[in-house]
Amino acid sequence: MAFTPADHDFMTRALQLAAKGRFTTDPNPNVGAVIVQDGDVVGEGYHHQAGESHAEVYALAEAGGQAHGATCYVTLEPCSHFGRTPPCAEALIAAGVSRVVIAMLDPNPLVAGKGVAILEQAGVTVESGLMETEAIALNRGFLSAMERQRPWLRLKLAASIDGRTALANGQSKWITGPLARADVQGYRAQSSAVLSTASTVLADSARLTVRQPADGTPITTLNNGELRQPLRIILDRRQQLTSSEPLFSLAGPILLCIAPDKPLRQMPAQVEQQVVPLGGNGYFDLEALLKLLTARQVRSIWVEAGATLAGSLLQQQLVDEFILYQAPVLLGPQARAMAVLPEITELSEAARFDFNDICQLGPDIRLTALLSKAN
Amino acid sequence: MAFTPADHDFMTRALQLAAKGRFTTDPNPNVGAVIVQDGDVVGEGYHHQAGESHAEVYALAEAGGQAHGATCYVTLEPCSHFGRTPPCAEALIAAGVSRVVIAMLDPNPLVAGKGVAILEQAGVTVESGLMETEAIALNRGFLSAMERQRPWLRLKLAASIDGRTALANGQSKWITGPLARADVQGYRAQSSAVLSTASTVLADSARLTVRQPADGTPITTLNNGELRQPLRIILDRRQQLTSSEPLFSLAGPILLCIAPDKPLRQMPAQVEQQVVPLGGNGYFDLEALLKLLTARQVRSIWVEAGATLAGSLLQQQLVDEFILYQAPVLLGPQARAMAVLPEITELSEAARFDFNDICQLGPDIRLTALLSKAN
Repeated sequence: MAFTPADHDFMTRALQLAAKGRFTTDPNPNVGAVIVQDGDVVGEGYHHQAGESHAEVYALAEAGGQAHGATCYVTLEPCSHFGRTPPCAEALIAAGVSRVVIAMLDPNPLVAGKGVAILEQAGVTVESGLMETEAIALNRGFLSAMERQRPWLRLKLAASIDGRTALANGQSKWITGPLARADVQGYRAQSSAVLSTASTVLADSARLTVRQPADGTPITTLNNGELRQPLRIILDRRQQLTSSEPLFSLAGPILLCIAPDKPLRQMPAQVEQQVVPLGGNGYFDLEALLKLLTARQVRSIWVEAGATLAGSLLQQQLVDEFILYQAPVLLGPQARAMAVLPEITELSEAARFDFNDICQLGPDIRLTALLSKAN
Repeated sequence: MAFTPADHDFMTRALQLAAKGRFTTDPNPNVGAVIVQDGDVVGEGYHHQAGESHAEVYALAEAGGQAHGATCYVTLEPCSHFGRTPPCAEALIAAGVSRVVIAMLDPNPLVAGKGVAILEQAGVTVESGLMETEAIALNRGFLSAMERQRPWLRLKLAASIDGRTALANGQSKWITGPLARADVQGYRAQSSAVLSTASTVLADSARLTVRQPADGTPITTLNNGELRQPLRIILDRRQQLTSSEPLFSLAGPILLCIAPDKPLRQMPAQVEQQVVPLGGNGYFDLEALLKLLTARQVRSIWVEAGATLAGSLLQQQLVDEFILYQAPVLLGPQARAMAVLPEITELSEAARFDFNDICQLGPDIRLTALLSKAN
């Protein structure tokens, strides 16, 4: 398949459109579509919010009669099933689109390729795989849920260049600057859920809600004008939190994870108490927790926690992506380490990642790394 | 002063030429020159090695009669004094060059502006400051020596993303990969001197010589076909090293720093023993060492050492530039810290840097940071 530079340009636009939905479509994927007639864009659309139309429907509506004989660039294989909306493959056929270019096939193994098959049966030319890597990066959570039946887990840490997250006395506000903090808001806002612990909530007075950052990229809102609040998952094995914690009074759902031997307590209405089994180490069984969250359609989890939870997730190889904000400062060996990990005696035993992206955020930098397949 | 895009293009070329000398000109600066007649390059040159011609002389020779009425782009103010070669300002005038564009003035306060004055007196149009930042970055050592009477000191560290340079058992080969190691060779080769300690020499069997890297950028040689070997400065306060250490038998000068109370020992011919006073902390007085090195025309120092020397240099604010190779691996809190530093209780007390550059080297990344003026 040889795609032209123009194909790349139009798919780039479709990916940009898809990304506009990244703060609002959860648990649905981000999808964008562009309809091109004689080299001109005649329709554009993207999926904005669950329960609303798919990207192709908006693009077709804008294109109207000009969709006849046109090419549709779409970042995800058009759907073939009646869900909340009629199948997009049928809509493209009905509009007379003659060619469909797809970035990635549907990751759900049960339906992958079905949209393509319907289109091809109707005589539409279908080409797929254009800018697939970029499309995958846009939908890590949705893909993970479909392909692995498990959420995509991002571990966030903010540290000095000598790898310290706080001084020995606990002081950590603010190692990184406002642009890095705004970036954290963006990641929270793109996640199905934010995972933290009672200890972190108490130590940092963490609220873990999404706020519109003063600097950085604005976060788009739902149709009701409000920010979508990811599910806040708080591990409180030892029942450290009382119902009067400030984070409980802020809008947005909370899943308070409690140990099997602990009683339910009186909590504000948006706090759901969930019993999670303990693992052999006496801590919560994190794999069991992830299973439970998968069943709740949690596609992606953003972890903001201390060295203990970070270490457990790393040791159990549950971290898919590591997001490290580094401030150009040295805190010294007495300051706190990033993650509680067992001592190793061979470098080959170390947890390995592959750097995925590096960017500058004001005085700080952000490194993102994916769990290496070499582990 | 409004420089045109063409001016930038020609100065970029002059800077590229200057950089060709970066492994060989020490203790002289890197300088490049381009002569342009009617928009065409008619002469190019760069300084290659101390004792040889300056960049302008090569460029004028290549340009010949076409230098008449031409513009000369030169990365450093043309010299005004008779040194090993006649003054370049006079040579430019004699060749009939009508305009000279300079990236940066001579950093030696005693001669800065004199080259410009000679040119202007002869009716040559002179403009300076074009791409000055880039020119400064090429000559950190020379500038530091001229302006501050002290070498430019780069501290190199190779660590995991959690800031560990070795496992608890000392294992550190190889945290970073071959491209990062080749990059280290390039930095060594650009430095007047490499500074290390007896402990590092013993622990790592360090030779600290410049070798041609198998991967990465080739290192240019001197006219005799050999690599220029920077002065190896080894701190050996406790006389841990014997004359049979492998690093003593390799080509290149060595300055073995010994304590005032220790006797001179029998050493190979290229090993010079230098008494360095001790400071109040019982270690070598590092400021006294730097003074002594300045007097020997050491312009830039590349430090490859352990956490103790790194910590001392950092604490005494003697590190001008921090070069950190980071491998995408986590070694855990038991592994060794980067630098011995005193505990701090306020984030505002921490040593601050400004990130200067980030680049990828195979699986690893390199961060460079300059000591922040905020310290």
